Amino acid sequence: MQLRIPGPTPCPPETLQALSKQMINHRGDEFDKLLNSITTRLKQVFQTTEDVFLLTCSGTGGLEAAIVNTLSPGDNVLSVSNGVFGDRFAEIAQSYGAEVSRLDFEWGKPVEPEAVTKALKADKGIKAVLVTHNETSTGVTNNLREISARVKEFDKVLLVDAISSLSSIDLPVDSWHCDVVVTGSQKGWMIPPGLAMVSVSENAWQAYSQAKMPRFYLDFGKAKNYFEKGQTPWTPSISICYALDVALDLILSEGLANVFARHAKVAQTAREGVKSLELSLFPQEDCASNTVTAVNASDKINVSKLVQILRDEYDVVIAGGQAKLSGKIFRIGHLGLVYENDAKLVLEALSKALPKATSS
Amino acid sequence: MQLRIPGPTPCPPETLQALSKQMINHRGDEFDKLLNSITTRLKQVFQTTEDVFLLTCSGTGGLEAAIVNTLSPGDNVLSVSNGVFGDRFAEIAQSYGAEVSRLDFEWGKPVEPEAVTKALKADKGIKAVLVTHNETSTGVTNNLREISARVKEFDKVLLVDAISSLSSIDLPVDSWHCDVVVTGSQKGWMIPPGLAMVSVSENAWQAYSQAKMPRFYLDFGKAKNYFEKGQTPWTPSISICYALDVALDLILSEGLANVFARHAKVAQTAREGVKSLELSLFPQEDCASNTVTAVNASDKINVSKLVQILRDEYDVVIAGGQAKLSGKIFRIGHLGLVYENDAKLVLEALSKALPKATSS
Repeated sequence: MQLRIPGPTPCPPETLQALSKQMINHRGDEFDKLLNSITTRLKQVFQTTEDVFLLTCSGTGGLEAAIVNTLSPGDNVLSVSNGVFGDRFAEIAQSYGAEVSRLDFEWGKPVEPEAVTKALKADKGIKAVLVTHNETSTGVTNNLREISARVKEFDKVLLVDAISSLSSIDLPVDSWHCDVVVTGSQKGWMIPPGLAMVSVSENAWQAYSQAKMPRFYLDFGKAKNYFEKGQTPWTPSISICYALDVALDLILSEGLANVFARHAKVAQTAREGVKSLELSLFPQEDCASNTVTAVNASDKINVSKLVQILRDEYDVVIAGGQAKLSGKIFRIGHLGLVYENDAKLVLEALSKALPKATSS
Repeated sequence: MQLRIPGPTPCPPETLQALSKQMINHRGDEFDKLLNSITTRLKQVFQTTEDVFLLTCSGTGGLEAAIVNTLSPGDNVLSVSNGVFGDRFAEIAQSYGAEVSRLDFEWGKPVEPEAVTKALKADKGIKAVLVTHNETSTGVTNNLREISARVKEFDKVLLVDAISSLSSIDLPVDSWHCDVVVTGSQKGWMIPPGLAMVSVSENAWQAYSQAKMPRFYLDFGKAKNYFEKGQTPWTPSISICYALDVALDLILSEGLANVFARHAKVAQTAREGVKSLELSLFPQEDCASNTVTAVNASDKINVSKLVQILRDEYDVVIAGGQAKLSGKIFRIGHLGLVYENDAKLVLEALSKALPKATSS
């Protein structure tokens, strides 16, 4: 089967096999070594020398952690959103009592850095900015480097959803001055869901020291205290850690630059292939993502039928649209364990399935 | 290796193998079927017809879910505690702004139901009661049936930490009128950590409708809405679900009554064996747990040395004491995949290791 949704992604045999290892004591030496070895290499992929923690939760749990560890109820937060996941980030902040100002962009268009500058100029009371690096719902990669430069001009805390980008698309956490960056195991990491990985900068720790949102399970301070003992505060998802251990070797032995280049190349093949089928990309092409390609479905294409035919007749699993894009676009995931040939197989299946899902 | 800590517990080959299955779409038909099949059988083990949800987190995350979904900041809560995990449950409630009244019992002694009645009589403003069914830190199983009867006389919300009991020790959720019951995958379920399973009663849903503690990732309402679509709100730990699917078959084909009886028998072997080594049980024997045996270490026994010798020389992993019991007790876990012979192997290793860890 070609599982080509934007996560969970297919796992290579090496990580699948690692999952089957027997349990160990999560408060013993063996786990201590595993946790330290994983964390050291995670920092290489995050391109950071700051703290990186493993949290046993999905990416959404990681986003919640970013918020509750750096903010207090009533804090003014700027939500910069151009899709479902940007909106979710804002919704989490609201749930915990933040005052959220919205800076929304048309879905399929990128976040405009200049608008971020304007918003920060207009409202001096903003404490933190929420940004989605790669908006999985629209297939847009935002210009995080430039957005961060604007946010840091105003010395705000920058919280980044990099769930579907980090490890697949370049995101040098330290040189882009990102304060909390969240990713999820089931994306470019080639391992199953169940772990969020988060980086926490010195500046984020300063915010933490004043943050009053309630937290317990996702508390960064507890994560740091236990990490110093070679542990996690609560029993971690050991199997997924085994798989991550192997995946990090795969990623680092391929080399980060090569991994990013492979994703860029596969994405280009996907985009060109889609256009050659006389379909159009949903996002503006200069911000089209290297991990997920969103495609416009004309009025004549029945998206749910297309998804079903691809799955049932061609063993290819793609995703439809979310929220207001439901029925209007479909999405091909190409992150993690993905090569050009995979994109070609998907495109070939798509070319055969399309006529069957198109009304005349 | 004999992994005999009170969780993570050893996994049988069947569940380990299931972990290696390839990923699927968590929003597709196959996961829908898996989730429904798991949930139906989980309800049998919980002995409930009410809602049961899978949360991708550790047991502590499940405890947090119990609190934030049923309470509001300022609510009066009665914490009934006789160990580390009872205290943790209270600490979570406090972190989220509950007013916690403490009803503490000596560690190693059981919760006295009559004292619960007195506390509820004395303070009419209490909304919910937090109870630990099996206190892993002291090896005590509390008389939940009787405690529940007292709590329900006063019509309070009953939140139960059953992390290290449910599936190993009888806990008929409906007939004991427990409102939220939390367990964790790495305990009696014979699968790795990474999932909490929680039951939610009709009464708990009434509390939910008024509960104002902030929540997002662990929101029961979102879990219910998505369950109706055959999904979880956020990407679930699919691999652990695969393993749980297999484990439920193992548990139900053995039969719940047989599983409970096996745990009782192994525990008895452990207790008798410990006493035959001229050691004494830490807990009062009539409340000693069937999933973990806590043993007093005399002043002459060096617990950390004992744990290390058992691990390094006899391939047996046991646990020391926690918090104020550190260095004073050691604990043998016997839950999940455990038979009498396992207990005997641990006891034999213990008999050999003890002299090496005892000063004269």
